Amino acid sequence: MQVLDQQALPQKEQWLDVRSPEDMITYIKSLQVRGAPMIGVSAALSLANFARSGASYSEYLAAAEALRSARPTAVNLMYAIDKMKEIPQDRYSPDTALDVAIKIFEEDFKLCERIAQAGEPLIESGDQVLTICNTGGLATVGVGTALGVLRRAHESGKKIHVYVAETRPLLQGGRLTAWELQRLNIPSTLLCDSMAGTLMAQGKITKVIVGADRVAVNGDFANKIGTYTLAVLAKHHGIPFYMAAPTTTLDITCSSGQSIEIEQRAKAEVLGVKGSFGEVAWAPETCSVYNPAFDVTPADLISAWIFDRGVLYPKDIASGVFANWSIKE
Amino acid sequence: MQVLDQQALPQKEQWLDVRSPEDMITYIKSLQVRGAPMIGVSAALSLANFARSGASYSEYLAAAEALRSARPTAVNLMYAIDKMKEIPQDRYSPDTALDVAIKIFEEDFKLCERIAQAGEPLIESGDQVLTICNTGGLATVGVGTALGVLRRAHESGKKIHVYVAETRPLLQGGRLTAWELQRLNIPSTLLCDSMAGTLMAQGKITKVIVGADRVAVNGDFANKIGTYTLAVLAKHHGIPFYMAAPTTTLDITCSSGQSIEIEQRAKAEVLGVKGSFGEVAWAPETCSVYNPAFDVTPADLISAWIFDRGVLYPKDIASGVFANWSIKE
Repeated sequence: MQVLDQQALPQKEQWLDVRSPEDMITYIKSLQVRGAPMIGVSAALSLANFARSGASYSEYLAAAEALRSARPTAVNLMYAIDKMKEIPQDRYSPDTALDVAIKIFEEDFKLCERIAQAGEPLIESGDQVLTICNTGGLATVGVGTALGVLRRAHESGKKIHVYVAETRPLLQGGRLTAWELQRLNIPSTLLCDSMAGTLMAQGKITKVIVGADRVAVNGDFANKIGTYTLAVLAKHHGIPFYMAAPTTTLDITCSSGQSIEIEQRAKAEVLGVKGSFGEVAWAPETCSVYNPAFDVTPADLISAWIFDRGVLYPKDIASGVFANWSIKE
Repeated sequence: MQVLDQQALPQKEQWLDVRSPEDMITYIKSLQVRGAPMIGVSAALSLANFARSGASYSEYLAAAEALRSARPTAVNLMYAIDKMKEIPQDRYSPDTALDVAIKIFEEDFKLCERIAQAGEPLIESGDQVLTICNTGGLATVGVGTALGVLRRAHESGKKIHVYVAETRPLLQGGRLTAWELQRLNIPSTLLCDSMAGTLMAQGKITKVIVGADRVAVNGDFANKIGTYTLAVLAKHHGIPFYMAAPTTTLDITCSSGQSIEIEQRAKAEVLGVKGSFGEVAWAPETCSVYNPAFDVTPADLISAWIFDRGVLYPKDIASGVFANWSIKE
């Protein structure tokens, strides 16, 4: 099994060998494998491979638990691990594990298609859409989440322009989204995260669309650090703010964003930058640093939630629609 | 004449020879000399040196005009150039030019002291203050503007903690302010610009204080890109937002922020980073880029304007106080 090294893009298209669940944990922690849906699918496939390499049932379950804790915020990982652990001991075999992993893979592909179909009508010709992080084909098995919506709008002939926030500290916008949009021939402009406000003040942004790492039952959601700031800015300027995610990103055990655990990452990420493009550090090494990987956007800043099951509006969330949703197909 | 290379800090303390006004123009454009007040003082001193090297009056005037256009937004540069050009031809000499430049230098020092004195009472013990860019001793001849206020508060025994936005693209916060605060022993934490929103949502910021590059008569002001976003966030969270600047930053010919010219800078600044710490680029070279050096914060987002002449509140601005101000001492 091999995975594309997302820390090496766009400078290098480099594939990494996954010889064990430990390898996958390393790649997920280093963000070489990233994107909430992609993490879940990749973890499931590495578990299936582990089963095929002869792992006992108890070794399999222990590896599943270790994978679950590789990133605490992305709920898709928990979903995939739960699915893989649903195999009872008396049915455990390399084939059953692979079957479940392939189902998770295929499901992600379909969910992305449905998100794109559901969200596409929200995008109009002439829209100038701001996004953050990477929510495209690299983040999922399929067409992506937020970026999939924009891709479908572009492919259906709507004239759109995408503004991409670079997404410090790990620059998923500047590295991955900028690269994907060029490959898709979607007109785009890259900016530093701090420039979003003045773009909106100048009337240059008509919509904001982002992905999600975990959605709470009250509609709050966690996503890449910087998302919350864009939501506040959009509210201030009266610009619609959309979230796009598969149903697998919904955490029905999570009542509100306040109970979402936010991972703090390494100090070095803020002191400088590091990747296949090179490594530099500009800030004094002795600095204290604040480096949360995600932030939480409260439901009251969100205009619509784009899911594979359709578009939800604040009244739907208020009526408790999620309580009736099962993440099963 | 030598100037400290602010693009080399904090890795190297490197001084640059200024042999001509052209050298100074190069250093200002490259931000090796930066900080609105510092730019004005440095330009004046380089003009005085030019006079001392035997420049004719017409050469002197031409050099002054060339210096004026080195950076279009910082009004302190215009102020200093106007002062240097007030010398009539019949009084033009190396000594008169040097006298005027030294007056500008001394005035900046005094203005900083007065800003710090005026603003210090606004800071309380226990405050956790967010700032952006660099507004300290490096940006001025004296103690600084916004950072000078914080320094005085710290020196007077108030317990404060300063949160520093790194200030992409040129990282004046991460390089210069982080370094200055460590030298001053003021407790501080560095963050990426996109993290300010979630810090505020968590109640970790009690005040925001920033510098200014040009203040309009209606109270709007231009400052480092990212300032406007912080002002919108502060408003949303009910956090006081202060601006600190010398009277020389007021442009009495500018009626509102809408007429402030905003300089667009080179694309390479957004595609990567470059400095004495090294040079890397992570984004595809063929990207389109948006890179304004400044943004404009409208008066209605500002809690108070801290000037050397005292602290102004919205009612003072509304009553047209600036119309009665002369920038002369």
